[in-house]
Amino acid sequence: MKHYTSINDIENINSWIDEAKEIKANPLANKELGKNKTLGLLFFNSSLRTRLSTQKAALNLGMDPIVMNVSGDAWGIEFGDGTIMNGNTAEHIKEAAAVVSQYCDIIAVRAFPSLTDKEKDESEQILNSFVKFASVPVVSMESATGHPLQGLTDAITIAENSTKKKPKVVLSWAPHVKALPHAVANSFTQAMQKMDVEFVIANPEGYNLNPEITKDTPIIHNQEEAFKDADFVYTKNWSSYENYGQNLEVDANWTITKDKIGDAKFMHCLPVRRNVVVEDAVLDSDSSLVIEQANNRTYAAQLVLKKILEDL
Amino acid sequence: MKHYTSINDIENINSWIDEAKEIKANPLANKELGKNKTLGLLFFNSSLRTRLSTQKAALNLGMDPIVMNVSGDAWGIEFGDGTIMNGNTAEHIKEAAAVVSQYCDIIAVRAFPSLTDKEKDESEQILNSFVKFASVPVVSMESATGHPLQGLTDAITIAENSTKKKPKVVLSWAPHVKALPHAVANSFTQAMQKMDVEFVIANPEGYNLNPEITKDTPIIHNQEEAFKDADFVYTKNWSSYENYGQNLEVDANWTITKDKIGDAKFMHCLPVRRNVVVEDAVLDSDSSLVIEQANNRTYAAQLVLKKILEDL
Amino acid sequence: MKHYTSINDIENINSWIDEAKEIKANPLANKELGKNKTLGLLFFNSSLRTRLSTQKAALNLGMDPIVMNVSGDAWGIEFGDGTIMNGNTAEHIKEAAAVVSQYCDIIAVRAFPSLTDKEKDESEQILNSFVKFASVPVVSMESATGHPLQGLTDAITIAENSTKKKPKVVLSWAPHVKALPHAVANSFTQAMQKMDVEFVIANPEGYNLNPEITKDTPIIHNQEEAFKDADFVYTKNWSSYENYGQNLEVDANWTITKDKIGDAKFMHCLPVRRNVVVEDAVLDSDSSLVIEQANNRTYAAQLVLKKILEDL
Repeated sequence: MKHYTSINDIENINSWIDEAKEIKANPLANKELGKNKTLGLLFFNSSLRTRLSTQKAALNLGMDPIVMNVSGDAWGIEFGDGTIMNGNTAEHIKEAAAVVSQYCDIIAVRAFPSLTDKEKDESEQILNSFVKFASVPVVSMESATGHPLQGLTDAITIAENSTKKKPKVVLSWAPHVKALPHAVANSFTQAMQKMDVEFVIANPEGYNLNPEITKDTPIIHNQEEAFKDADFVYTKNWSSYENYGQNLEVDANWTITKDKIGDAKFMHCLPVRRNVVVEDAVLDSDSSLVIEQANNRTYAAQLVLKKILEDL
Repeated sequence: MKHYTSINDIENINSWIDEAKEIKANPLANKELGKNKTLGLLFFNSSLRTRLSTQKAALNLGMDPIVMNVSGDAWGIEFGDGTIMNGNTAEHIKEAAAVVSQYCDIIAVRAFPSLTDKEKDESEQILNSFVKFASVPVVSMESATGHPLQGLTDAITIAENSTKKKPKVVLSWAPHVKALPHAVANSFTQAMQKMDVEFVIANPEGYNLNPEITKDTPIIHNQEEAFKDADFVYTKNWSSYENYGQNLEVDANWTITKDKIGDAKFMHCLPVRRNVVVEDAVLDSDSSLVIEQANNRTYAAQLVLKKILEDL
Repeated sequence: MKHYTSINDIENINSWIDEAKEIKANPLANKELGKNKTLGLLFFNSSLRTRLSTQKAALNLGMDPIVMNVSGDAWGIEFGDGTIMNGNTAEHIKEAAAVVSQYCDIIAVRAFPSLTDKEKDESEQILNSFVKFASVPVVSMESATGHPLQGLTDAITIAENSTKKKPKVVLSWAPHVKALPHAVANSFTQAMQKMDVEFVIANPEGYNLNPEITKDTPIIHNQEEAFKDADFVYTKNWSSYENYGQNLEVDANWTITKDKIGDAKFMHCLPVRRNVVVEDAVLDSDSSLVIEQANNRTYAAQLVLKKILEDL
C-alpha cells in the first residue's frame, strides 16, 4: 500500500480485520519491520487518542515517531497555487511536504475542516497536498471528510464483538453544543458498507450526510424505529451537511439513553460529551465498547503502518 | 508498587535511598526492564526538570516516553461527576484516563493546584481521578498538595551529603512575587519526618503549612533561631495555607543570604528567583546543592519507575 | 570538538564535506556511537527543518532526542547577571543550563535575535549563556547572528552539485514582508569564505551585512552584474544591518526570476515566500536545490553530533 487516506484504500476489509486481530494478539511480532524508520506525526489540530495510539503503533513496529504540532512548533503553511506570499503564511506546502519527506519515511497528518466552506473542505486541500507533494507515503489521522483509522478501528471492534452472522448496526446522530465535522460518520459509513452487516443511519431531518457517501444506506429520521433490534449503536454528532457546518434546531431529544438502546452495544469514537451525546448510564455500563475502540486504535494504525512499511 | 502519588507510598526510606544510590552508580543496569513499555507523561502545567529527568529515567530503563501537554495538545478535560458537558470541557476524565491506559504502561501526571479553592485542591481531583479511572499505575509529577518525586530526590541528596549521624535540616520559607503551591514543602516535610534527622520548619506567622502535614515538627517563626547549627537549609516559598493561596505582608526579610546560613548546605527544588528567594552569593557558592538535586531527580524517578515495572 | 556554535568551529571545511558525504552514503554506520546518549533540543523559536532533521540525525547515531519548546513547555528564563528576579522570568540561565546538562549529553539551542538591539543580539546572550553555564557540549540550531548547521549544509550541497573546479557563488538579498535575521546570510558567507569558490554578495544599498563578517568579499549593489556567469545563486532576505532590523524601501525589484539566474542553480535555506523572494518558475524547476539542501541538513547535523560524540 502507498497512502492510507480513506476507507476506500481498504481492498478487503475482512482480511484486514483478520490481520488486525493477529497484530493485537502479538503486537511486537513485527518489531524489526520499522527499525531505523521514522514516522512523522503532523498535527494541525488537537489530538489525544490519535496522537498516542499512532505513536504506540509505530513503537510496536520498531519505528521512531517524531511529533510536530504544525501551528505552534513551525510556520504558517500556504496551500494556494501561484500565491504571492506576502501575508501570514511563511512556507508553501510544496516545500513543507517535500522537506518533511527528507526526514520521515511515512508522514501522518491531521487536518480538520473549516466547516464554513464546503467546497474547500471537500477538496481536502491539506491532506491531498501532502499526498501530491510528499515523496513518501501519507496516512490520514483525520482529514476534513474522513477519519479512516477510526473507521477501520470500528470495523475491527464490531467484528470482535459480534455474536451474529449479520448484526444490525445503527449510526445515530446525537446532540452537541458545537458544530462538528462529518469525518468520523463518513468513514464509519464507508466501513460498514464494506462489511456484512445490516446498516442504517438515524439522524434528524436536515442532518443527512453527503449522499455520495451514504449512497443506498437507509436513512431513518425516527431514532426509535432505527434502534429496533439493533446490535450496535454507533453514536456521533455532526453538523448539517446541507446547511453546511450549521447546528440546526432539533425538536426531538436525540441523546442516547439506556432505555433507547436496550441490549445493543454502544460505540463512540471519543471524546464524548457525557449527558449531552449520551447519558452516564450507557457509558458506565457493560454495553459500552468505547474503551475497547480506543484500544483498537493502536492495532488499526499498526496494521496500516505495517502494510505501508511492507511496500516501502 | 502500584501507584506513586505521595511520600507515604515509601515504605522504608532508607532502603529506597540505598537503591537510588545503586541506580545512580549504574544507571543502565536495568535497561531491559522497561523494554517495549511506554511511559505517558501528561502535563497540565509547565515543567523543565520533571519533564526532562522523568524522560531520562524512562530511557535509562529502556522505556519509550510519550509526552503530551494536555492543555495545548488535546481536549479540555471534565472532572465533575454526572456533569452535563455542554460547556468548555470536551472529554471526561473517566474516558481520558481509561483511554491513555490503553497506550501507556505507566501514566505520569502533573497538575498544579488552583490556590483559590482549598477543599478542591486538597481533594486532588486530577491526580486521584487518574488513579481511580486509569487501569495502569499512576505517578505524580507534582500535584496540588505534593511533589513526591522531589521529596524523594531531596532525601537522597541529604543522605549523600550528610557528614553527621543525625544532621539538622531546616525547611525555610522565603519571599516570592507570586503565590506558590505547598506541594514541594509538604513532600519535603513528609520525607524528613521519615529520616533520622533533626527537622524544623522556619516560616513567618501566617505561613504555617497544613498541620496534618507538619504534625509534631517544630515550627519556628524566627529564621535566625531556626538556622542555628543547621547542616542543611532547604528553601522554598509557599503561599499562606490559613489565608489560602494569599501572599501576606511579611515584615522581616526572609531572603536567604550567605551570612544567615553560614556553613550549612543550601537546597532548593528549582526554579529559583535569584536575589528574591536567595542571593547570588549562596547559589554560586560551593554550599549550594541545587544542581546535584536536579541530577538526583533522574534517579528518584528511575527508582519509582523501576519499582512499578517490577510489579507490573 | 566541544561546542558547535559557528562556522568558525570548522577547522577544515573540505575534510568535513568529505566526511558528510560518507555519512550520507551510509547514514546508519555509527548507530552505536550515540547509544544511551540523549540530545536535548531546546527551542526558543519556531522550527520545522531544524527540529526534524536534527532529531533524525540523532536517531541515525542511536541517540535519544528530547525536544522542549522552552517558552510554552517550561519557565521564562532570566539571562541578566545579578538581576533581582521579581519580574516575569522564573528561572535563571545559570540554573537552567546546568540543570539540562544533568539530563542531556549534548544540548542544541535555537534562539533568534530581537532585531531591535544590535549590541544585545551580537552578544549572543542566550547561546553564549548555554556555552558558559552548561557542563555539556552546545550546538547552535540558529542563534542571533549565525546558523552554522545551515551554512555547513550549504557548503555540502555546493560541493555535491559543482561541476567546476572553482564555481561562482552569489549570495543575493531578496525582498520579504517581514524584517528577518542575518544569521543564515552570515553563516553562508563564512562558509563560502572557507571554500575554493568565487564568492560575491549582491544586495541593495543599505543592506550590507556586518563588515566583520563580509570582510573582503565583494559586495555588489547591481543584481544583474552580480549574477553574470553565476553557477549558484543563494537567495535570502535579511533586514538592514546599518539601520538595524529595519526593512528599508528598495526601488529595484530584487525578486529572483528564471530570467535573472539563467542556468545557475538556485539555493535557499527555506522557508521561502513564493513569488516574493523567488518566483514559482525557479522553485519548480530543475535548477532548484532547495529540497536537496533540506535533505543535507540531516547529514550536516549528524556530522556535527558525530564529532562531538567522538570527543565526549
